[in-house]
Amino acid sequence: MIYLDNAATSFPKPEAVYRAVERCMRTFAANPGRSGHKLALQAGREIYLTREAAAELFHVSDPFRMIFTANATESLNLALKGILQPGDHVITSSMEHNSVLRPLSALKEHGIMVTIVPCTRQGSLEPDAVQAAIQPNTRLIAVTHASNVTGTIMPVKEIMEMARDRQILLLLDASQTAGILDIDLAECPVDLLAAPGHKGLLGPQGTGLLYIREGLHLKTMKEGGTGSRSEELTQPELIPDRYESGTLNTPGIVGLGAGIQYVKSHRAQIQERETQLTRFFLEELKKVKGVILYGADDVNAPRTGVVSMNIGDLDSCEAACRLDQEFDICTRPGLHCAPLAHRTIGTLDRGTVRFSIGFETTEAEMIETLDAIRQIASHS
Amino acid sequence: MIYLDNAATSFPKPEAVYRAVERCMRTFAANPGRSGHKLALQAGREIYLTREAAAELFHVSDPFRMIFTANATESLNLALKGILQPGDHVITSSMEHNSVLRPLSALKEHGIMVTIVPCTRQGSLEPDAVQAAIQPNTRLIAVTHASNVTGTIMPVKEIMEMARDRQILLLLDASQTAGILDIDLAECPVDLLAAPGHKGLLGPQGTGLLYIREGLHLKTMKEGGTGSRSEELTQPELIPDRYESGTLNTPGIVGLGAGIQYVKSHRAQIQERETQLTRFFLEELKKVKGVILYGADDVNAPRTGVVSMNIGDLDSCEAACRLDQEFDICTRPGLHCAPLAHRTIGTLDRGTVRFSIGFETTEAEMIETLDAIRQIASHS
Repeated sequence: MIYLDNAATSFPKPEAVYRAVERCMRTFAANPGRSGHKLALQAGREIYLTREAAAELFHVSDPFRMIFTANATESLNLALKGILQPGDHVITSSMEHNSVLRPLSALKEHGIMVTIVPCTRQGSLEPDAVQAAIQPNTRLIAVTHASNVTGTIMPVKEIMEMARDRQILLLLDASQTAGILDIDLAECPVDLLAAPGHKGLLGPQGTGLLYIREGLHLKTMKEGGTGSRSEELTQPELIPDRYESGTLNTPGIVGLGAGIQYVKSHRAQIQERETQLTRFFLEELKKVKGVILYGADDVNAPRTGVVSMNIGDLDSCEAACRLDQEFDICTRPGLHCAPLAHRTIGTLDRGTVRFSIGFETTEAEMIETLDAIRQIASHS
Repeated sequence: MIYLDNAATSFPKPEAVYRAVERCMRTFAANPGRSGHKLALQAGREIYLTREAAAELFHVSDPFRMIFTANATESLNLALKGILQPGDHVITSSMEHNSVLRPLSALKEHGIMVTIVPCTRQGSLEPDAVQAAIQPNTRLIAVTHASNVTGTIMPVKEIMEMARDRQILLLLDASQTAGILDIDLAECPVDLLAAPGHKGLLGPQGTGLLYIREGLHLKTMKEGGTGSRSEELTQPELIPDRYESGTLNTPGIVGLGAGIQYVKSHRAQIQERETQLTRFFLEELKKVKGVILYGADDVNAPRTGVVSMNIGDLDSCEAACRLDQEFDICTRPGLHCAPLAHRTIGTLDRGTVRFSIGFETTEAEMIETLDAIRQIASHS
């Protein structure tokens, strides 16, 4: 089987991740931060180690600014709903995932104004277009670091500087880039960064992160037991507790720690291979008659290991189904939870077949995938 | 090591739970409901099996009414914030956990009125006191099934009938009882039931459940990608998708499925043993000079396997610390995230040492624990 659905969730994970989850579950998965006995203390310590590893990866000096969530969707909801107040204006792009667009739709009903800046047909966001959308009450710009449909990398640094000049907050959705691209928050200090644990960070599903810049105070989305200031009937101010009510996913977080360590040790090598494989794949696809590619025309343009395409008039679901059934290749067809991105690139009618490369994808697998595409294209 | 902190999280889990998590992570942990390839379909199918097992356990006919969350705290937040509107009145009890009290504190700021009915010094809730608190705008009664401090089981059936007669909704917090007591929602049809996956249901941390009765429509707390109706910019109405945005914790949920299966196969036996051990423990504790017990005086009164006590004038943290350091016994001291419960039973100053029995606790372990308590009591 060839797994090319890493943009949905990375699979497989490094061996160390499986072992970390198992070790945690079997030997110390007590309730972290709740009791004082040795297992609970160990659980708390190991969660801290993941927090620290995540902070280091993103060049954040205070690990307590890294909040654990269930997934990037929760991180994005917490960020958007925690920051935006009635009367605020927020800017986002047409390449966003529903995990940004749907919370913003919900916020519109509470008096928040939303501008969705259209991207180019290739899926890129123009900083000038963002600038033109700024209003006196613009409080936040929420933008994806890279599109989950086309792999297009957005000009985050320019947008960040523009936002900073105007004292507008910037929320970066790093769902497609955390663990994949270098993200240095000391050098590019965005205010909020949301990331899944189970994609490029190679951790288990059920994990996500939200970085909250020092000095930012968010409304909470969930209140409850935090193991701290238990005598108070209101949510404590203390971070990370304020944003982490209820029992954490200790085994998942410990596994995420192992994933982040793997990423840290192998990053240059993973990046180089993913870039090479993506370029090779794009170059070869360009030669296949009937294949329609989306995103940047230039195969050397910066992008993640995500390639969207269609074959002739074939519905994307039918093409992906054939890849799965006849060739044992896992891809994702359809709309990829980003309807406006599909409208932007002109595929709202049939979606795209998305191939997303992972840290263990090989050249041989990409050659086999290309053969399969050629066969489907020649008969469609 | 003797682990008596099962009310915080059950430990260890059945062997089948570890194996299920590992099998899932290693062989099929793709993104459920997102793509159509065989791994994603298997992930979706296995999640459905857990949903079905949970529905069966609670006698719910439609598995899609069982929503997966990250923990009971999230379930309770979703239930309370999903149901209550400005102007509504809600009744709860003084024995509730902060996972109910803190969301209600937050809701007060949005025009929701809250009455906290005081319980007796033994921790029990009188149905008459609930009835007296009902107002014309009472929309919801939120009550714990059993106290996490004293193990006291609340008169849910009486309260449910009272609520039903007055068309008031009932939210049951089954954090301390799901998987431990028989909960038959066909026979005792509460409107909402919140449960953790990682306590009595013996699943991994990072899992929780919310049962939503047919016909109830909640506001969402998180919106995002659901893998369904991706073309829509607003959250779909479809259940369970409406309440389950973002990638689910597939390994955790699959592990929870194994935990629920274990509970189903061994329930009578677990219940009998936990009841016996609890009674034995209470009877022996009553004989120890200096031990102060909380909750029902009668050792035969219905209660879960949770026993709170103090030794002489010793601070609960000091007693628990000695149990851990000198005797290798894991308990939980302090306030147990339920401040009003401690005020109710008179332990707000120093908390209690809580012993909570699990499915693998043995009589030998309880005898060793009693010996340790006797030693501490004789020197304090």
